[in-house]
Amino acid sequence: MTEHKRSVGTEIGRPAEELIATAAAVKTASRQLALAPTDVKNRALLRIAAELRARASDILAANAHDCASAIRTAQQTGKDPLLDRLTLTEGRLENMARDTEAVAALQDPVGEEIERTVRPNGLIVTRRRVPLGVVGVVYESRPNVTSDVAVLCIKTGNGVLLRGGSDALETNTVVVSVIRDGLAAASLPPDAVALVGSSDRGLVEQLLGLREYLDVIIPRGGEGLIRFVIDHAKVPVIETGAGVCHTYVDRRADPGMALEVTYNAKVRRPTICNALDTLLVHRDLAPSWLPVMAARWVDAGVEIHADRSAAAILGTARIPHRAAVNDDWGREFLALVAAVKVVESLDEALQHIERHGSGHSEAIVTDDEVAARRFVAEVDAAAVYVNASTQFTDGGEFGLGAEVGISTQKMHARGPMGLRELTTYKWVVLGSGQTRP
Amino acid sequence: MTEHKRSVGTEIGRPAEELIATAAAVKTASRQLALAPTDVKNRALLRIAAELRARASDILAANAHDCASAIRTAQQTGKDPLLDRLTLTEGRLENMARDTEAVAALQDPVGEEIERTVRPNGLIVTRRRVPLGVVGVVYESRPNVTSDVAVLCIKTGNGVLLRGGSDALETNTVVVSVIRDGLAAASLPPDAVALVGSSDRGLVEQLLGLREYLDVIIPRGGEGLIRFVIDHAKVPVIETGAGVCHTYVDRRADPGMALEVTYNAKVRRPTICNALDTLLVHRDLAPSWLPVMAARWVDAGVEIHADRSAAAILGTARIPHRAAVNDDWGREFLALVAAVKVVESLDEALQHIERHGSGHSEAIVTDDEVAARRFVAEVDAAAVYVNASTQFTDGGEFGLGAEVGISTQKMHARGPMGLRELTTYKWVVLGSGQTRP
Repeated sequence: MTEHKRSVGTEIGRPAEELIATAAAVKTASRQLALAPTDVKNRALLRIAAELRARASDILAANAHDCASAIRTAQQTGKDPLLDRLTLTEGRLENMARDTEAVAALQDPVGEEIERTVRPNGLIVTRRRVPLGVVGVVYESRPNVTSDVAVLCIKTGNGVLLRGGSDALETNTVVVSVIRDGLAAASLPPDAVALVGSSDRGLVEQLLGLREYLDVIIPRGGEGLIRFVIDHAKVPVIETGAGVCHTYVDRRADPGMALEVTYNAKVRRPTICNALDTLLVHRDLAPSWLPVMAARWVDAGVEIHADRSAAAILGTARIPHRAAVNDDWGREFLALVAAVKVVESLDEALQHIERHGSGHSEAIVTDDEVAARRFVAEVDAAAVYVNASTQFTDGGEFGLGAEVGISTQKMHARGPMGLRELTTYKWVVLGSGQTRP
Repeated sequence: MTEHKRSVGTEIGRPAEELIATAAAVKTASRQLALAPTDVKNRALLRIAAELRARASDILAANAHDCASAIRTAQQTGKDPLLDRLTLTEGRLENMARDTEAVAALQDPVGEEIERTVRPNGLIVTRRRVPLGVVGVVYESRPNVTSDVAVLCIKTGNGVLLRGGSDALETNTVVVSVIRDGLAAASLPPDAVALVGSSDRGLVEQLLGLREYLDVIIPRGGEGLIRFVIDHAKVPVIETGAGVCHTYVDRRADPGMALEVTYNAKVRRPTICNALDTLLVHRDLAPSWLPVMAARWVDAGVEIHADRSAAAILGTARIPHRAAVNDDWGREFLALVAAVKVVESLDEALQHIERHGSGHSEAIVTDDEVAARRFVAEVDAAAVYVNASTQFTDGGEFGLGAEVGISTQKMHARGPMGLRELTTYKWVVLGSGQTRP
């Protein structure tokens, strides 16, 4: 979030007025895009995919500039330039093009009639799915987010105002110009997708207040960014973010299954939000099972932070570990680190999750149907698992086809958000002269 | 909103800590309420209805105190005490009891399985409807909102933290104690419903920031209150509010139907958000139709603010009117006042609505199917009508059974919100040891 803490001051003209003019242009264009038939939107998407490939050298050259600047800045400031996230390769660019084609192939939710009732007075009351309008997306370095988000918004008939990381400005500028050209080639208004180039922090705050032009803001990035957006937004926000995920291995878990599920939940990709942070093990199973599990984790490079009971078991088995500190509970490690706690009961596990979970993804491993049913009913999280790895929390894995992000709030959308979550509805009421008594 | 502009300063103790303790108690209780079976929740509701009747004299006595204080304050400050909104009568109390019984009779949305898919790897991915958690409601004088909102929240398994107007504090205190007793009588946790008694403005701001305890805030009241909530909330808000509603009478409208619909949209209840504010008339129809319409309105006491073309027609017909000023377009009158404009075309009507509407309720009167289809597609509002009065925008009229409010935002819920709009969903994933490749 450091990018929000400096005011670059390289603006010329009046950036606030330019921002408003840009947002107004997106809104006007979004009204046209909202009415576009599915095949026209798909034509634009396929053109964008083709142009991402055709203009690969331009995009990669711009990205090379961005990376070089990031390295220079890093040398001056001694800060990690997050180069991996910033860097585009031919392979990553090809993925951006393929993802765009995949979205073109998905079903368009816009226009769907959700509900229809005929009232006693003859009024036909229907709900129809329509685009949200204009979506603001505030994100960090990764330039693939630019095409991901723009493509999902185009498919759902939404305008989008993008505010990417200033590190990736040159890359994003070229990618957005490719997208706008693709829209124009399909006779759709290019202004439906726009990039806010400035890295002026005050301008980002102003963007978050543009209630007249934006219908929703989606922040994508680290905790600092999300906090900043929540604190400053006047436009409704769909919060995405931190996952403090637990896996509870019940006294009646199948030990072999518990090993596979727990290993996968931590090790498959430790740096994503649905990765295991804390393992809770029932005390009846812990003495026999935990040393086997921990040894596997340690082989995979996992650092274990154990509570007193777990430490006693691991100590006896001579498995390397550290003593857990209070801050380990409820911490999202995003690394090969796991906290481990031995619990007395399902109730203790539920209480621990209630206190320390972030409402993202939580799992129980058990053969006891009663325990499974209680866990599912009582855990308040976007995704609750029985006998499966929390790493499945993902739009693709849940069958949504694409993912805009994973919501950690309860309003509008919860968990993985697909195309439908970029829409709202409109009540359409068809009458024949009805008046209300 | 004047109540938010003063800091009463009569607090003793540490109100901020008391607020947090209250919110924490609501959250804990809400977890239990979320798991309550429908029949238990209904038993509580029926008990509440019975107690509202049994304790009528207590409630009316408290209300008499509130009204007396409001009159004293009004004498001191010269301000309108909004006595009508504050006053409870036996009839109004009986309505509160009946509304409570009606909600008990509605279907419980909680627990409904919205979706179920079996993935190729055998994972069963379902979405289940669950309560939002804790709903914060910030409202003004009307004490019936207290029972309305609490009852809807109980039915949907939500805890609720109520912050009513300080004018109605004694009344609300008794009503909330009746509701809590009803919960206790059904063995449900009374703390699921709590009232924030303080009128300290800083405390309201703090309530709006209680992200740890509240899942959503619903403001109910005037524009000032809603603005205050949006400006200060860190918790997600469902905005309810202003309706600037247009009725467009097309060149191909049935003149008789247009008279009925337009008359009803303004006159039936002029003080509610779905009442007509601006009438747009196609120029082909205006010379013959507008004088008849305007004469009816004038007979009903409607004050007409006419644009130049409308004024010319009304002047010739000697129908009383004023010249419209710029501020009349986009103004919510909430009174027997209507702005009238003659438009050249459907396009001009659509542009006018886009510019001045508030996205609430908009109507076209026409026999032209093409015009109707364009109007429905292009007008961006919660409710769009063809050949019917905008006064139908209401949860009951749309078949929702009850209404929490009318949302004017696009996220989560749009237009009338019923019980379902007080819920969210949880992804429940049932596996047999699946790990993600």
